[in-house]
Amino acid sequence: MKIVKVSGDVTIKRTVDGGTEAQRETVKEIIANVRSNGDDALKAYTEKFDSVMLEALQVEQEEIKEAYQHVDSKLVEIIKEAAANIRSYHEKQLRPSWLTTEENGTILGQKVTPLDSVGVYVPGGTAAYPSSVLMNVIPAKVAGVKRIVMVSPPGEDGSIPAGVLVAADLAGVKEIYKVGGAQAIAALAYGTKTIAPVDKITGPGNIYVALAKREVFGDVDIDMIAGPSEIAVLADDTAKADEVAADLLSQAEHDVRASSVLVTPSMALAEAVQREVEVQCAALPRREIAEQSIRDFGAIYVAANMEEVVETVNQLAPEHLEIMTANGMELLGKIRHAGAIFIGRYSSEPVGDYFAGPNHVLPTNGTARFSSPLSVDDFQKKSSIISYSEQALRDNGSKIAEFARLEGLEAHARAVESRLKKQ
Amino acid sequence: MKIVKVSGDVTIKRTVDGGTEAQRETVKEIIANVRSNGDDALKAYTEKFDSVMLEALQVEQEEIKEAYQHVDSKLVEIIKEAAANIRSYHEKQLRPSWLTTEENGTILGQKVTPLDSVGVYVPGGTAAYPSSVLMNVIPAKVAGVKRIVMVSPPGEDGSIPAGVLVAADLAGVKEIYKVGGAQAIAALAYGTKTIAPVDKITGPGNIYVALAKREVFGDVDIDMIAGPSEIAVLADDTAKADEVAADLLSQAEHDVRASSVLVTPSMALAEAVQREVEVQCAALPRREIAEQSIRDFGAIYVAANMEEVVETVNQLAPEHLEIMTANGMELLGKIRHAGAIFIGRYSSEPVGDYFAGPNHVLPTNGTARFSSPLSVDDFQKKSSIISYSEQALRDNGSKIAEFARLEGLEAHARAVESRLKKQ
Repeated sequence: MKIVKVSGDVTIKRTVDGGTEAQRETVKEIIANVRSNGDDALKAYTEKFDSVMLEALQVEQEEIKEAYQHVDSKLVEIIKEAAANIRSYHEKQLRPSWLTTEENGTILGQKVTPLDSVGVYVPGGTAAYPSSVLMNVIPAKVAGVKRIVMVSPPGEDGSIPAGVLVAADLAGVKEIYKVGGAQAIAALAYGTKTIAPVDKITGPGNIYVALAKREVFGDVDIDMIAGPSEIAVLADDTAKADEVAADLLSQAEHDVRASSVLVTPSMALAEAVQREVEVQCAALPRREIAEQSIRDFGAIYVAANMEEVVETVNQLAPEHLEIMTANGMELLGKIRHAGAIFIGRYSSEPVGDYFAGPNHVLPTNGTARFSSPLSVDDFQKKSSIISYSEQALRDNGSKIAEFARLEGLEAHARAVESRLKKQ
Repeated sequence: MKIVKVSGDVTIKRTVDGGTEAQRETVKEIIANVRSNGDDALKAYTEKFDSVMLEALQVEQEEIKEAYQHVDSKLVEIIKEAAANIRSYHEKQLRPSWLTTEENGTILGQKVTPLDSVGVYVPGGTAAYPSSVLMNVIPAKVAGVKRIVMVSPPGEDGSIPAGVLVAADLAGVKEIYKVGGAQAIAALAYGTKTIAPVDKITGPGNIYVALAKREVFGDVDIDMIAGPSEIAVLADDTAKADEVAADLLSQAEHDVRASSVLVTPSMALAEAVQREVEVQCAALPRREIAEQSIRDFGAIYVAANMEEVVETVNQLAPEHLEIMTANGMELLGKIRHAGAIFIGRYSSEPVGDYFAGPNHVLPTNGTARFSSPLSVDDFQKKSSIISYSEQALRDNGSKIAEFARLEGLEAHARAVESRLKKQ
């Protein structure tokens, strides 16, 4: 892992996969086909891409019951506890509708309403993460979304992984379909005979899923399109090198394009972490992925002082930030850009990935400068409320009409005056 | 204006201008040129498109002072009062950061941070609306954004309309540049020598501006891309036909593609409004625009009963909704989808366009199903906070490690265990 002295602006080296022209064409074709041929197209693509001919797309209650037999009951309890923590955290994000009243009869306000329906995409194969089900479904549930649909590509035996089904059931999903890829996104956006359309689609997926989400965006809402995962560790010489290294590697094992960075004022820590990463990496099952990720996207930045460390972190705007310093809390106010902030040596990133409660769907690729973790807000929308009394309009109507005329909009002025001219 | 009996699903007829291939190519070329040639490119495009050679891009303090001489002082006072109302409403949207603590030392929370910098686009010519300046700038200011930049194309005399400059000054903008079109969006997204880049771009614009915003999205954030304006009036036979007609026409005068719709259970009201629209329209300065808009995108929907009226409105998900019924407030709970809801006969839409306080930047094109009015939330972002104590990790660490192993991520498990194995 290379050590770099900070001088001037620093950015995390990142790659964004925008897809090829051919991939974009394929996705457009799939969407058009699903819009024309509905369920038949879904089944044909499932046969083609997932190598299984399905009779029914929807997962039956029986299959969910069965799934519980295939997950260790101790794990079911852990998933339940994680779900409870996630629910409890997201309930704190709920905001009430509000109204204000004035003596002249004016009422202004903001009404908060859940979305009618949401679709959650869950990848198949080794990327079928139960934690991802919890993190996408529970905020929607807490927001009050009535219809939550899950889609996931089936394996060759026509089933969805037991852990995913159990997580979906515990999170409260009542409608699950065995369909993946761009065809699943098309079905969620435009509907088929079996799958009614939804208003918003969330959840991670491969490049075809990402391109399909971009394509349907506008007709329905989508969540962010996530890039490879990132961690920045901000540490001083009170940090333990082995723990810092372990955390960097936990990010690196995700993906060869994941980015793991240490920012520190301490050259001693930098060198110790460099050694530890090498040693620990060699002993990992996913060693090859982690090695390549560390080599291509990892770095240890050594800054002149803590001020420069903080400024570097703000420039990076990392998805995950761990603060391992003598007093982490006192740096919190200085951190402007980070998806999730883990404070102290006992707050290793996996604590947040699975269990603590905050969402693990976080802004990647520097977008923490302007984006937020997935939250209850993403599953609700607001409507403004305006109610003027006769008195309020008599007090302000001529000013409103004058403003409208300044902008050359005479019918606006007359709409107001149509009320004022009457007794 | 045609009268249609509701039967089954109803949708507002809408057009979305996605631009032509040639326009998209032009926009890409302009962006590339601004990225390569910076200020020189901006000045060259301003000469080409706005017919003026500028020496300096930035508006000087002197020009702002001068602008006040060209706006009626009574209007300045009206703009000030509108700004105060807008500020007061948006301050109620502010949300605090929060923390929760548990006895075992766990701290979880959510930190709310303003964006560092925002760019507001203001169209030129007849679409240079002071109200649009207030509605875009004030929420950013209230959110705590430190740097707010405004861009607007100059007229042939090299100036920006006085009303726009006065509104910008009253809203607290300190940095204004004379540049418009796709070149302005490129400058805001990527920066030039004169214009430092921003993190988010908001504000309406023509098709080139809209395409440029789409193009830079991801590198910076953008607000929604607005379609033509829409109003739905929900009225029973207590409503005054002349007032309903005046409100429909105030929307129709905006744009030939604007959409004005009445939904009512009363055929008598429908027919009276139909007549009033014809009479009032004939007397409008922007008659031709309003006429075409009403003809192409207007409709009066007559439903069997109030329940069907409400369901129709929810299907339409209009940008603006006016409720003119015997008791408007009692319908509020049934309205699921609308950008802004105006209740009662004295709440004519222009009340909200200019003055009352809620934002006039609203979701169009049915996106009120999942989108919200522009708000303080759009200029802040959240970071999750996670701090586990040693005790909290000892209580939960093995569960977290087990969950990680369920997902096949061994380094995640080891990161947690690296802390637990020590005394």
